[in-house]
Amino acid sequence: MFEQHYQNLINQIEAGLDAALPPLAVAEGGTVVEASRYSLLSGGKRIRPVLLLATLESLGLQLDLGLPYALAIEMIHTYSLIHDDLPCMDDDDFRRGRPTCHKQFGEALAVLAGDTLLNRAFEIVLDNKMSGRENGLKAAQIIARSAGSQGMIAGQALDLAAEGRIIEPEALRLLHSLKTGRLIAAPVLAACALAGAAEDVTRDFQDFAENLGLAFQIQDDILDVTATSEKLGKTTGKDSRDLKSTYVTLFGLDQAQSMLREVTGLAKQALQRLADRGYSVDFLFGLTEFLLTRDY
Amino acid sequence: MFEQHYQNLINQIEAGLDAALPPLAVAEGGTVVEASRYSLLSGGKRIRPVLLLATLESLGLQLDLGLPYALAIEMIHTYSLIHDDLPCMDDDDFRRGRPTCHKQFGEALAVLAGDTLLNRAFEIVLDNKMSGRENGLKAAQIIARSAGSQGMIAGQALDLAAEGRIIEPEALRLLHSLKTGRLIAAPVLAACALAGAAEDVTRDFQDFAENLGLAFQIQDDILDVTATSEKLGKTTGKDSRDLKSTYVTLFGLDQAQSMLREVTGLAKQALQRLADRGYSVDFLFGLTEFLLTRDY
Repeated sequence: MFEQHYQNLINQIEAGLDAALPPLAVAEGGTVVEASRYSLLSGGKRIRPVLLLATLESLGLQLDLGLPYALAIEMIHTYSLIHDDLPCMDDDDFRRGRPTCHKQFGEALAVLAGDTLLNRAFEIVLDNKMSGRENGLKAAQIIARSAGSQGMIAGQALDLAAEGRIIEPEALRLLHSLKTGRLIAAPVLAACALAGAAEDVTRDFQDFAENLGLAFQIQDDILDVTATSEKLGKTTGKDSRDLKSTYVTLFGLDQAQSMLREVTGLAKQALQRLADRGYSVDFLFGLTEFLLTRDY
Repeated sequence: MFEQHYQNLINQIEAGLDAALPPLAVAEGGTVVEASRYSLLSGGKRIRPVLLLATLESLGLQLDLGLPYALAIEMIHTYSLIHDDLPCMDDDDFRRGRPTCHKQFGEALAVLAGDTLLNRAFEIVLDNKMSGRENGLKAAQIIARSAGSQGMIAGQALDLAAEGRIIEPEALRLLHSLKTGRLIAAPVLAACALAGAAEDVTRDFQDFAENLGLAFQIQDDILDVTATSEKLGKTTGKDSRDLKSTYVTLFGLDQAQSMLREVTGLAKQALQRLADRGYSVDFLFGLTEFLLTRDY
């Protein structure tokens, strides 16, 4: 039931992404679109767009109204991965089991492919049924702010600054809440905006999303130690090699796992409050469980 | 008169840019904002935002309604310069008389500074008085499309592909109309959208802007040969060194200068048509003359 619906949502997202950035002739500058599509259409768990659609569902809104915003967030996520993987940043050769964008197309096209996806994300939120309506505008603002210099990019800057040194737990938490958390909360909050959800309902969804984002990051840090590169589709064991501050390097594996259980519990409590008020959040429960137990 | 008004518009733009991306504490990821501000607030002719404000003036609309869109376009222009200057792209050390962003802050921060400016541009067009109105939405769509994979970025991709080889004149024209032309036409067209200008009026403004954009590019190619690095604030003589196809390397200096006079004439004819219909385009005439005779 959960898996079937997850697959159903992913299918809609994959078809949407494919259509949202169609191939372009090389004579018209199409190589950069090819490089963008290479990274955008390489699978992945699609957690952010799935969260947006699933939240909309819980709130009783038609999915097609939210799809453009879901695609935009996935494009922003993908652009950030392409730029993060560059030699001057994390210098990663593999992503989702394939060579990274700059390994495949060269650095110059990888920079432009990232730019393309960020720009295209905003073209999409500016040009859909909801963009002329107040709720659509609010959703777009949430996405823009979450991705910007006081959101995800600030987290990336903190990550750069933290390279090769051990930072305080509070600083690690801020870093992750910005770098990963904001773009995991964004789809949930954007869905609330699109649906015009009441403030207290939005607050519960936000509580859910923020704890889920934190759980996701802790799990990522754990998997860097426990998973294989094949399963993860990217190089593992990098964090300790790079002397990176993570939940595992700072607290050890055992405590990281107990923190993961704790924040997952908090996410579920927030969902339970929504369930108690009559919102159907079964799928979001399932997704939380899936993310907690994932091995990739 | 012209110079005084140009300076007046520039002052509004400089103040606006300074306020639109305020400094952020280092502990909150502020180094990337510092790098963004370094490139954004380094002067320059501010042609794109000036064009937007001057077009709005010709159409009788209040300037403050257009200022956010003008700032957004200048941010997009600046981000494209930062990424263009990177070692993997044009590998430039100087820009506007100062070390380029990556020379000053390193490559990783330069990539993120560009990302910051692009994202911030969209935050601004999504969050101002006009963004909830149809005309504001149209202006935002014009800007997004002009900057994207079928606009400026396509031009950059064509530029990459043309490196080190001589291309056909038609291909050069397409390359420039995308890489430079689209973001020079965008402010004029965005101003028409904001003012809700009639279609035929918009057409004359577009004709003006497209010829002005072409003139601007030809002049750039000429200055690469005739100007000094000091005056231009960037390395000159690069085009022939890099075997780059330009109006000068393809047609020779004399013919490039005669083409410049021709397209400038076409831009002025379009303005004259607008003047004949009662629009006050004196400043735009002055700006066209200024750009034709500039030596930097």
